[in-house]
Amino acid sequence: MLTYCKRRQLYLLGRQRFTPSALVHQRRYESTTSLLDLQHYISPDRTGRRAAYGPLGTELKRNVLQQWWTSVVESKPQVFAISTLHCYTGGGVARVVDGGALDELGDQPEGQLKEKLSRLLQHSHAVRSGLLQGALQQYVPSLELMKRKLPFGLAETGFCYRPETVHSDAIGCGSSEVTEASLVWFCSPRTSSQWMDYWARQRLQWWRKFASGPSDFSMCDVLSEELREGASRGVKVLYRFPSGLETLETLWSLGDAELLKAHKGSKSKLQCRDGRKNIVPHVLSLSADIDRGVLAFLFNSLQNIQKVDSKQRLHQRKVLKLHPTLAPIKVALDMGRGSTSELRQVCEGLLQEFLEAGISAWPGYMDTTQSSLETLHAKYDEMGVMFMVVISDSTLENGLLLVRNRDTTIRETMHITQIRQFLLKYISAADSV
Amino acid sequence: MLTYCKRRQLYLLGRQRFTPSALVHQRRYESTTSLLDLQHYISPDRTGRRAAYGPLGTELKRNVLQQWWTSVVESKPQVFAISTLHCYTGGGVARVVDGGALDELGDQPEGQLKEKLSRLLQHSHAVRSGLLQGALQQYVPSLELMKRKLPFGLAETGFCYRPETVHSDAIGCGSSEVTEASLVWFCSPRTSSQWMDYWARQRLQWWRKFASGPSDFSMCDVLSEELREGASRGVKVLYRFPSGLETLETLWSLGDAELLKAHKGSKSKLQCRDGRKNIVPHVLSLSADIDRGVLAFLFNSLQNIQKVDSKQRLHQRKVLKLHPTLAPIKVALDMGRGSTSELRQVCEGLLQEFLEAGISAWPGYMDTTQSSLETLHAKYDEMGVMFMVVISDSTLENGLLLVRNRDTTIRETMHITQIRQFLLKYISAADSV
Repeated sequence: MLTYCKRRQLYLLGRQRFTPSALVHQRRYESTTSLLDLQHYISPDRTGRRAAYGPLGTELKRNVLQQWWTSVVESKPQVFAISTLHCYTGGGVARVVDGGALDELGDQPEGQLKEKLSRLLQHSHAVRSGLLQGALQQYVPSLELMKRKLPFGLAETGFCYRPETVHSDAIGCGSSEVTEASLVWFCSPRTSSQWMDYWARQRLQWWRKFASGPSDFSMCDVLSEELREGASRGVKVLYRFPSGLETLETLWSLGDAELLKAHKGSKSKLQCRDGRKNIVPHVLSLSADIDRGVLAFLFNSLQNIQKVDSKQRLHQRKVLKLHPTLAPIKVALDMGRGSTSELRQVCEGLLQEFLEAGISAWPGYMDTTQSSLETLHAKYDEMGVMFMVVISDSTLENGLLLVRNRDTTIRETMHITQIRQFLLKYISAADSV
Repeated sequence: MLTYCKRRQLYLLGRQRFTPSALVHQRRYESTTSLLDLQHYISPDRTGRRAAYGPLGTELKRNVLQQWWTSVVESKPQVFAISTLHCYTGGGVARVVDGGALDELGDQPEGQLKEKLSRLLQHSHAVRSGLLQGALQQYVPSLELMKRKLPFGLAETGFCYRPETVHSDAIGCGSSEVTEASLVWFCSPRTSSQWMDYWARQRLQWWRKFASGPSDFSMCDVLSEELREGASRGVKVLYRFPSGLETLETLWSLGDAELLKAHKGSKSKLQCRDGRKNIVPHVLSLSADIDRGVLAFLFNSLQNIQKVDSKQRLHQRKVLKLHPTLAPIKVALDMGRGSTSELRQVCEGLLQEFLEAGISAWPGYMDTTQSSLETLHAKYDEMGVMFMVVISDSTLENGLLLVRNRDTTIRETMHITQIRQFLLKYISAADSV
């Protein structure tokens, strides 16, 4: 997978096969974080080398994961959730060992080192580098639930550790940490190719649903020489980052080989019914890199808008046009002119109303530093806040408030009793498109 | 923490201080899993020693996490989500190392072992054993967001690795894997004691909200000799498992020591405004063990109900009376007497309607093995399914279907157009109690 990405990317850089790809990523990483840090999406960690999600980034990632879950698990009665262990007994690319025992090794005399080392190895655990193996293990316990009826799927989202992808994930959050969203689909060998087509189409559509520029998301077949071991076909969903294409999701058609291997070839307990026959199902594996997906959505929705005002001055503004379902903050609440203490009470009441309705709201009114409306617009646009509501004197008089839309920049007045319903309708309408 | 739990538990076992606590857990673990495995909540892994969540257990855990998030983050405008790294450079109780390099060590001649080992150590990462440190690191980047205004909180949920808790988590999922939900609360030193009271009350209320037997959830102060380093006060939320009390959540009042330590004592960048003064805030740390919480809810909601029928025969049934918000499956759809193909169409339509409304539904009608209504009731009660809907001949004639309530066991007829609204109302009513 990685090799494929890297090669493809280097190809796009004009076959500069010797360009250190780490450098490319480093540069991209810097420009992204300096941008996104401002908006509290991604913040560098103490070493400055790796990055952690800021508050808005965390909420964005939660929303992406939730949408994946809704689309793959909650809307499909044949897909079941599983939650497997992060660490398991045995070998693996990354191993967890007891820190204390490891440190002690250094103080051992040479003669006893080997023995201590082998004891340490015995007690070490492997850390999962993907979710496929866990799902293959859960296949047998799931059979009873499904009454051995095909097709069905096992889904899981979670943290994986991939020490080998240090370079290509430097842009994400943590050089070797990946949040993967995985569906493993078990189906009859007769239909596996149709299912592969179905899922590939479904997955691309899903990514594009939340894009403001859908054409940056594309799909391609994996070349036969790049196929992973045991796979008969592979499809990738790609995103065109400024520095080149990167894989967001990979779909593999794996036949029955991986399943048999995971259960040491014992066909009888693996069998399902396919009409009147008993068969070992074919396995499709879909796995999305959610961290890279979050980044793709951020890049995709960031727009630079230039405007010349009446005095011929050029205004630039950045707008993070995140899809309404993904936007971490739906509405910001601010105060206009008027009695601070009274307006504050109204704001607090409205904030509570929003939160109870499940509308994530930003308490802008708590910030007592004076800012002009334009400054606030610019700030909220960069944060991707969908609506800004201003409560002022007139709200106290006649109940009217001002609502500004991030995408249209139109400001309209609305009665305070209607705003909640307006927001709920707007979000659900965007969701069902 | 652990010591405290263990001692307390051993105390409750009648001061049998030498009872190996692993044995106690093992026995409890076996009785739980044999019970819960049937209902697809927890399934043993391939070694049989540790357990992974089954499909219903995974959904239950998702629901618990979501409710925690709603209560702590989404309903509080001063609480922000963070997402920190699982692994970081430096020492720690558990360390991730390159598996290949570790294996190679065994083949090294004694003379070169030390050098290779120290190189391995340099490249190793520590795995987080809790979420507090990550939040303390994120404190400084969050200050700008909060305009240095107290109080505010940083929340995160996620996987932690605790090799030292092998025994007490054997009952959970994975002996050393814990899903923690953490809130780190920064407040003025003047108010930290009130905030501690506030959060302790809020957290106990939260656990009890979802209990069918709230009295099994209790709270106690940590004895002064059991306080963690740097803490001036500690409170624990406990659950009375059949084998004894265990801690579900711990609250520590940490003063400013941990924060200063995490930032190497540089007071100036840590300061917040408290009225007109600049101060370093006090830190409260709340951390819940979600895996143990899931288990507590399972134990708490499982009821054995005995009934003598008209022929004086004793009937026993197990009902998993999970709170409506937590129950992984809200409704099961089954077919009664009638033309299979026509009824199936109705079921499929209704299932789709449920899923689109976000009501998790079980497609019981897909199971073509004939079962009596009583068998189905028993099965769904054990699974904790809240409602069972039966579509039959009469549904085709007059649109009426049969709805059975898990908790009251009452069956009532309802028109097919009303069922969705009925379920939504029932769930949201239970949620807002």
